[in-house]
Amino acid sequence: MITINENYLKLNASYLFSEIAKRVASFQKSNPSKEIIKFGIGDVTRALPKVCIEAFHKATDEMASEASFHGYGDEQGYAFLREKIAQWDYQAHGADISADEVFVSDGAKCDTGNFQELFSQTLSIALPDPVYPVYVDTNVMAGRTGEFTQGRYGGLTYLECNRDNGFVPKVPETKVDCVYLCFPNNPTGAVITRDQLTQWVDYARRNKALLLYDAAYVAFIRDPKLPLSIFEIPGARDVAVEFRSYSKTAGFTGTRCAYTVIPKSCIAYDAKGNGHALHKLWHRRHTTKFNGVCYMVQRAAEAIYSEEGQRQVTETIDYYLRNANLIRKELSALGFSCTGGENAPYVWVDAQTDSWKFFDMLLEKAGVVCTPGAGFGKCGEGFVRMSAFNSYENVRKGLERLGKALQR
Amino acid sequence: MITINENYLKLNASYLFSEIAKRVASFQKSNPSKEIIKFGIGDVTRALPKVCIEAFHKATDEMASEASFHGYGDEQGYAFLREKIAQWDYQAHGADISADEVFVSDGAKCDTGNFQELFSQTLSIALPDPVYPVYVDTNVMAGRTGEFTQGRYGGLTYLECNRDNGFVPKVPETKVDCVYLCFPNNPTGAVITRDQLTQWVDYARRNKALLLYDAAYVAFIRDPKLPLSIFEIPGARDVAVEFRSYSKTAGFTGTRCAYTVIPKSCIAYDAKGNGHALHKLWHRRHTTKFNGVCYMVQRAAEAIYSEEGQRQVTETIDYYLRNANLIRKELSALGFSCTGGENAPYVWVDAQTDSWKFFDMLLEKAGVVCTPGAGFGKCGEGFVRMSAFNSYENVRKGLERLGKALQR
Repeated sequence: MITINENYLKLNASYLFSEIAKRVASFQKSNPSKEIIKFGIGDVTRALPKVCIEAFHKATDEMASEASFHGYGDEQGYAFLREKIAQWDYQAHGADISADEVFVSDGAKCDTGNFQELFSQTLSIALPDPVYPVYVDTNVMAGRTGEFTQGRYGGLTYLECNRDNGFVPKVPETKVDCVYLCFPNNPTGAVITRDQLTQWVDYARRNKALLLYDAAYVAFIRDPKLPLSIFEIPGARDVAVEFRSYSKTAGFTGTRCAYTVIPKSCIAYDAKGNGHALHKLWHRRHTTKFNGVCYMVQRAAEAIYSEEGQRQVTETIDYYLRNANLIRKELSALGFSCTGGENAPYVWVDAQTDSWKFFDMLLEKAGVVCTPGAGFGKCGEGFVRMSAFNSYENVRKGLERLGKALQR
Repeated sequence: MITINENYLKLNASYLFSEIAKRVASFQKSNPSKEIIKFGIGDVTRALPKVCIEAFHKATDEMASEASFHGYGDEQGYAFLREKIAQWDYQAHGADISADEVFVSDGAKCDTGNFQELFSQTLSIALPDPVYPVYVDTNVMAGRTGEFTQGRYGGLTYLECNRDNGFVPKVPETKVDCVYLCFPNNPTGAVITRDQLTQWVDYARRNKALLLYDAAYVAFIRDPKLPLSIFEIPGARDVAVEFRSYSKTAGFTGTRCAYTVIPKSCIAYDAKGNGHALHKLWHRRHTTKFNGVCYMVQRAAEAIYSEEGQRQVTETIDYYLRNANLIRKELSALGFSCTGGENAPYVWVDAQTDSWKFFDMLLEKAGVVCTPGAGFGKCGEGFVRMSAFNSYENVRKGLERLGKALQR
């Protein structure tokens, strides 16, 4: 008899986005003429950079003739892209990463979700709350948690992110084996300083722990004092893996390209205490279960690594950052305490009331949609996430409406 | 301490393709002027169909302006593609499959590799020998096997494919829970008849087993009596999942698009015997660990579902089939017993000696590279795989050389 992985039955059904859609649809039905403005979306809205479009067309033409056709490439990506990544995203910022430590993939969601496969079942795992649900759910599916009760899964260590710690968790007092970190953070928009990140690296070195560092929103960092990569921190090469994506950097949410960096010196252990290079284990996983990213997509990603490419990417990110800054400024002026919105596309707003009540109020009074923080974990209760991925005109219009609705 | 999934240590390092590369390089070094002809490759060589190139350019242009830009799509694929798949690939051939039973992905390698995640650890698994290594290795990684000894992993049921059964395994006399099947087969090129496939479906229904049916090479089937899909067999909807790919159908090995069909009536069980729809479980897996296929790639795949698209795809496949038929004919004339090469791109040649000895002999005497069958499993010993993915001119030249080298 074919029997299922019963860990799937433990998964708390995430009603967040379907519940939002339901409430929005119901409001729209009652108010058919009302234009709804969405601050809830984590998806980009601006066109692909011109350099990417050009590279795409050129690579597509190569596929049209046998002499320049590309079939299977290396699963870990073409050298032309991996070398640019190592040079432009790491070496140029003082991080000692080489091209063969980069694995190109079709998404940071896939990579952060799949990476746990490399580890034992008995791993103790720490992750932030609020959190990007993929880190949690993939470990539930793998059987590393207990049941879901009172908003949390048994067996996980939740790192509470709140106003007291500026939404950057401190290192735990207990030992854990594996820690998920994400900066600039989704959903809070918080960033981590060099000192804070150094504490995490030191913690990991002390405890032979591993840091899984999600830097999908790195392109939004403008403050030169903030670290762009965990590999700028001394000693991180031995205890950290970094995930990055072109989704937000270059508008690739519908184009799909990302990468994971695994330094060759990063080690995990077997039960006897022998060390094994994670690079080698992931290489085996990646070549067995993945077959590389579309050639044209890799050429399009490569195109951002040029002076003109960087200018175009920066221009798009600046556009979103102007939105984010405006959201933060206007909501702060209305008396709401805000995190993020600087060096990040998300503004995390203290709603001063229940997440969903605030959501309903904004929808009804202003026709504005946000994302209730409770959907990201227990510590998200009482907050909402406002996203900068929108047109500037919509953001202004939405904020005007919010101003009228929330005036006291 | 961060500890590894020790099942990875059980993996028998696959030296097949690296060993081939090593021997070829060594030969080339000793014979620098000799042109080597490769019959060893499982990768397409012909350009993308024109309809796909056009669709790619058009979709790329859409991404260049905000009004027609596409961000995240549904993880399971765009409706425009799923509907065409259901209509053209299934309903048109009498298989009752609807669009929402299709999950678009970036490769059949990924899907066949990931699908085992849905199942319990105690599953008894049967798979063919010789076999596409992904089915085996992903179950080893998941911990469903014992150690590798004498060419096989403990705990797996190997379905021996040999001349006696025409390289189509009979249903086992014992009960297993899950069976991997692949037709047209890689590496043997064997095909399965409607009667034979019906026996497998009946076996699965009798034993509440699941059939994982890999039809990646379906486009090569020309004999109208052969089933194209397992869902043409009555009752299969309850006990089978089918994997397909555009890699060989439309030359997408470097473009990346595939799909998996899971009928809503296909059920697996929990330990208490309650049924759960696999469709729902995979939907959860797919939406949690995957983020959809590149928009332009999905538009390119869609383009083959038109009269002109089908004409272009058929023309390319016909080209490879002419190669395959020629390889089979010439090697048969030289006295070698051959399978495949009709309704399949691979010819499975009885080498009448050790696989690697034959490989070395062909390389040295004819400058021709094949794939030693032993690399696909114990039952592959004594065979080599010859691939039709090449130019017709190269195939003719290679066969001429083989003719001279193998004449008796």
